Parts: sequence; structure tokens; C-alpha cells
Amino acid sequence: MIRMNTWHLPNGFRFAGIHSGLRASEPGRLDLALIVSDLPAVAAGVFTQNRVCAAPVHVCRERLPANDVRGIVVCSGNANACTGQQGLDDARRMTALAAGAIGVDAKKVLVCSTGVIGRLLPMSVMEAGIPKIALALAAGSDALERAARAILTTDTRTKIRTRALNGFCIAGFAKGAAMIGPNMATMLAFVLTDASIDVTDLAAIAPVAADRSFNCISVEGHTSTNDSLIFLANGQGAKLKGAALEQFRQAAIEVCAELARDMASDAEGASHLVTIDVVGARTDAEARVIAKTVAESALVKTAIFGADPNWGRIVSAAGYAGVPFEERQLSLALGDFLLYEKGTPLPFDAAAVSGYMKANRELTMRLTFTLGAGRCTFYTCDLTYDYVRLNADYTT
Amino acid sequence: MIRMNTWHLPNGFRFAGIHSGLRASEPGRLDLALIVSDLPAVAAGVFTQNRVCAAPVHVCRERLPANDVRGIVVCSGNANACTGQQGLDDARRMTALAAGAIGVDAKKVLVCSTGVIGRLLPMSVMEAGIPKIALALAAGSDALERAARAILTTDTRTKIRTRALNGFCIAGFAKGAAMIGPNMATMLAFVLTDASIDVTDLAAIAPVAADRSFNCISVEGHTSTNDSLIFLANGQGAKLKGAALEQFRQAAIEVCAELARDMASDAEGASHLVTIDVVGARTDAEARVIAKTVAESALVKTAIFGADPNWGRIVSAAGYAGVPFEERQLSLALGDFLLYEKGTPLPFDAAAVSGYMKANRELTMRLTFTLGAGRCTFYTCDLTYDYVRLNADYTT
Repeated sequence: MIRMNTWHLPNGFRFAGIHSGLRASEPGRLDLALIVSDLPAVAAGVFTQNRVCAAPVHVCRERLPANDVRGIVVCSGNANACTGQQGLDDARRMTALAAGAIGVDAKKVLVCSTGVIGRLLPMSVMEAGIPKIALALAAGSDALERAARAILTTDTRTKIRTRALNGFCIAGFAKGAAMIGPNMATMLAFVLTDASIDVTDLAAIAPVAADRSFNCISVEGHTSTNDSLIFLANGQGAKLKGAALEQFRQAAIEVCAELARDMASDAEGASHLVTIDVVGARTDAEARVIAKTVAESALVKTAIFGADPNWGRIVSAAGYAGVPFEERQLSLALGDFLLYEKGTPLPFDAAAVSGYMKANRELTMRLTFTLGAGRCTFYTCDLTYDYVRLNADYTT
Repeated sequence: MIRMNTWHLPNGFRFAGIHSGLRASEPGRLDLALIVSDLPAVAAGVFTQNRVCAAPVHVCRERLPANDVRGIVVCSGNANACTGQQGLDDARRMTALAAGAIGVDAKKVLVCSTGVIGRLLPMSVMEAGIPKIALALAAGSDALERAARAILTTDTRTKIRTRALNGFCIAGFAKGAAMIGPNMATMLAFVLTDASIDVTDLAAIAPVAADRSFNCISVEGHTSTNDSLIFLANGQGAKLKGAALEQFRQAAIEVCAELARDMASDAEGASHLVTIDVVGARTDAEARVIAKTVAESALVKTAIFGADPNWGRIVSAAGYAGVPFEERQLSLALGDFLLYEKGTPLPFDAAAVSGYMKANRELTMRLTFTLGAGRCTFYTCDLTYDYVRLNADYTT
């Protein structure tokens, strides 16, 4: 059998993905994942900024950063969010079950969940499923792919990105297709490496990687209760200091950025992946605010779905982003078509622009300001009938 | 003929609405409105906060507040936004044409536009249409209704609200069905009274009325380039001081709030009008931020469309509004169904809640915090296939 993907896998990690029965109505669908590090791993995480945050997020926050993480147990189909004290007890019980199954202390295991909010976890399913998944743990790409599949919700495909560097590998996998807003969203991402890194260095890299990747995508701007990005580094490979640390940092950012783009590309119901480049803003932060505002405009997103070159919606969305500018300081291009130059509309061939929008699944819009050197590349998708259909009936 | 509506009309105003040809593809559709005050009127306005603002907004801002306004000319079908210097020249020319037709100085006429952004106005149509509309001016309900119809874009019905008070009347009319976000949106509203009021008093009331009405509705949160709320008071009726001024202020707020609710109810493609009551927040301002965030969540709006009691989306939207709170400080009811109480989910009959959502065009959700006395009532709509359809192909 020829593999389409050759993953560069870090040493010392094992994976599993099984059907535990949490998704009772979908027999055989993988719904429980387990990641195990054979040696204690340095670990750091970045979590949702939502004030309403899921029980597993509370548990991970308590335990990170850490020097001795041995595993992460993840269920999909139930978010264990808005579940009160019972939810917290259940999340801790999941870590105890996984820890028992692999023979470590409960506090050395982390937990993530994704799915419907506001329902208590059926713990009998977890009591049976978690010991069972431990028996399925294996190293290698097939096991990784099963784990990556088991965390998916409405995603249509797994999201895995890896890198081989000088003396270590990085493997990342993620899920997320809706409830995706900047500042992390319904997304889970796990980045594993066999490099040896100090916990303070890893804890410093994690938020930067999140900021340059998952915080630069939006499906509909709804920040989830469950967002989690967790790094594990088990120290079996090269020791990261100086240039090697910087190399790791860059590679970690790249892996996260690729996973983030994979999410925007697989967004619920999307028919276009849209890259929004904002350049010439006062600062990178202002560029991101503008890009995010354009990315989240339902009017921009429906126009893209309809291949309608209604560029006034883009310019007007930039205008209400809360960033001060004058119209003469803004130009807009859609693909190669310059539509608006320093505050003045240009004549353009509407049929040609619409044709560009129809013919390409991936579109680019560029907002060029004359304010400074601030820039941001942001990814979003269009708003389609299928997005409405998928979200009009999710729990019932 | 029996009239369904009896409007309480202020004395001294005349109205007209005609088909000028600006909507060339829709023969007979009214697309030009004119409001004339027979005496110089005290005038104040509130306009879009969008940095990209339409040419007529620039012109109105230059001229208001004022003591001697004689008219407002309004076109629908073209926003005259993102049109550079030519757009400004065209907006001023519209006021000069209207002023010439009614025999007053150009600066005594205001101008508004609504429609597609980024297209130059076909001025030959305005040159012919504006003198023609002046000939159609008349007092009375029929003329008011024609003016109210001529300013509509994707609205399905006119929005008119009036009040008769002690010695004066107030008549308001408005348009707006999409590109509606708080902080004013693609909305135009005109509030006319024959009361006698000082310009400083009127200029103080206008932003309060906007804040309590049009800034408490959202269709999709896209703040328009053209939002305008203009008050005219021609001084033919009672002099407003003391208690009478306060009575006017309250009535003006009520008229604006009714017009705002009419807009949310007529939102593009909407199948539900949703009232979001936030109570017990720290301040009214924080209550509004939370209500607005819930109102603009595509996930909340699609769940309402689908009559899906996926209440976790509502709670999680509140959580990312940027207002600090703990989950145990929040309870949620949908209609009469209490779903989440002080951070804990309650058992509920999903079929019954879904039935409530299906059976009622008007739904209420109430988020109760235990933080203080801050409150806000906010109106929004659901996100439907029709919204996507209407907006996927608007310009082309």
C-alpha cells in the first residue's frame, strides 16, 4: 500500500482512537482519542478566552505548565461545557481512568472534550471506553491518524501536519470546522515533539504560536468554550537552546499556521477559502482587527458565496472595525483586480471579477493602507446555505 | 376606503415619493423621496460611526445642527458611498436641485442615500427627477406613505410610527432590513415634529434616542456607511420646556424604539424576531455588550432558525462578549423555559422548547446575571437560507 502522506513522527509517543459509544447514534464512528508519552513530557497549553469555559479546560489550566505529563484523553460528541460541578468531577474522572489504564498518577493526564454544550457526559461510556482505548495504543502513522480522526466533530477530514528538523520532529493534529473565532475557538490542537525543551521556553512559545495561527482564522467569530492547544515535548531528541530553540519556535508556529489554514479550508459548508491580507496598517494588531472584522461580516461572506463582486461590503466592514483611518488611505484588490484606490472607486469588469470568484476555491483580498508597516494574513470562509443547514439542527 | 392606520401628522410638513429611474430595472418602483418643512426647522442628526462614510453623511454632518432646515432629499438604490470627491459633489448637487425646486438656499436642504456602495450616482436621473418630485409634494398620510415607501431597499414594508401629544405631533419613518448593526446601520430614519424646541435641546435628544433604539438592534452586525437619523422640528406647535420637553424626549425615544423594532422584525430573510433581555449585569453598557454579542452569533441565529434548543451557544456567546463574569453568576431562560441556572444545566423537555421556537415568530431569551442592576433589551433575527440567498447576489 502506498501512503499519500509520510508523517514525520517524534519518538516516544503512542496514539489510539476508538468508538467508545459516546456517539451512540453513529455506530463505529471514532469518538475517543488517547495520546501517551512514554516518558514524562514538558507541557504547556493555551486555552479559550471565553468566560464560560468547559470543565476539561479548567482541569488543564490547573495542571499546566508541567514537567511530567504522560497523556491526553480526548472525547468528541460532548463538550462537557456548562455542566457545573458534575462536569468538573467528570473531567477529573476521565483523567483518573486514563492514568489508571496506563499506570501513572491521575494528575499526569490532561483532558479535552468537544461537541454539544450543556449536556452531562455519560460516564458509564467513559468508564468502559477509557480502559479499552489504552489497549489500542500504538506508535506510528496509522495510530496517529486514528487519534486525529477520533477528535473530529463536523470536520470532513483530519488535520495533521508534521516537520522533521535537526535532531527532532514535530507532529501536530487538530480539529475545528465551526464555532471558530479568533482568540481560539472550537478547536483542539495537539503539538508533540521529541525535542528537549525547558518548560519556561515551551510555555513562552505556545501563546505566540496560537497568536500567529489559530487566532488568525475565523469561521463565524463564535469563540468556543473548549479551545485547547496543548504542546508536549518528551525530551528524547535534541536539546533546544539558542539557534535550535529558535528553529523549533519557527517550526512550531508553521505547524500551527498550517493546521489553522486546514481548519478554515474545511469550515462548515464553506465553498471558498478566503485569505485576507491587510498591509500598511499602523500596527500588526490594528491590521488583525481590520482583517477579523472583514472576515466576520456576514455580508462579505455571503457575497463571496454568491461570487458577487460587491466590494463596498469589504471596505465598509474595514470602516467599522474601530481602527481610525481616512478613506483616501485605503485601497482594495480582489485577486488581481484593483477595485478601490485611495478612496476612489475604479472602473472594473464585474463579470470578470465574478468569474474569478466562481472559478477559484481559494480567493485573496488585499486591503492596502498608507498608515505604516502593520500587517496581518487572516483566513476565513464564505457563508453558504450549507452552513445554515448544518447549524440550524445540530443538537436535535 | 377604510384606512388601517391613522397617522398623527405634525403640521407644516409635505412629502413626496416618486420613481425617478434610479432603479432603472424596476419600472414604477419608488426610489426618490422628498420631505419639506414649510417653515425653517430646527434640525439635529446622528450618523454612522463607520470610518468609511457615504457622501450624503458628510454633507449632513457639515450642515447640522441647524435652525433653518427646509427639506431632506433621499434616494434609494445607490448609497453614494466610497465614491470619492465625485460623490461629494453629487450629494451637494442633489441638495441644490431640491433647494432650487422649492425655492430655498441649497444649504437648507439635507440629503440621504441608501443602496449599493461604490457606484457613482447617475446624475442625469437626479437632474430630471428632483424638479419633478417637488411638483408631487403634498401634506397628509398618503404622501407620507409614498415617501416612506420610496426610501426602502430590501425592506418588505414601510415603517411609520406617530404620536399625538399635548399641542404637538411626532411622525417618524424609517428603512432598514440588512447591514444593520448596533451603532447605527443601513438605516435611515426621519423624525418630524411641529413642536417648538431649541436646537441645543434637540441636538441633545437625538443621540439618546438613537442609543435607546437603533443602537439596540442587529441583523448581522455590519455597520453601514450611510446610517442617518434626522430630527426636524418646525416650531408650529407647543413650545417645549420643562415637563413638555421631557414628554417630547420620551415620545421621541418611543417612536425611535418602535421603528427600530419594526426593522428587526422585517430583517432580510428572517423567520423570527428575537428579543434578548439581559438583566442583572454590572451596568447597562455591559448588558448591551452581552446582548449584542449573543444577537450577532451566527450559531445562535441558525439554531433559532432551526428551532433547535441548543442553549449552550447562547451561554457561550455571552462568555466571549468581553465582560467578566463567573458561570455561577448566569442563568438563562428561553421563553418560559429555564434552561441554565447559576452555572448548572437544568433538565428540560427539548421537544417542548423546540415546539415553542417553531410555534412563535417572536421569541424571547433572558440572561439573568447576579452582578448588579444593569439591563438591556435588544432585538435581532434569525439567520436563514433566505438571508444567504438575498445577500449572495445583491449587486449583480
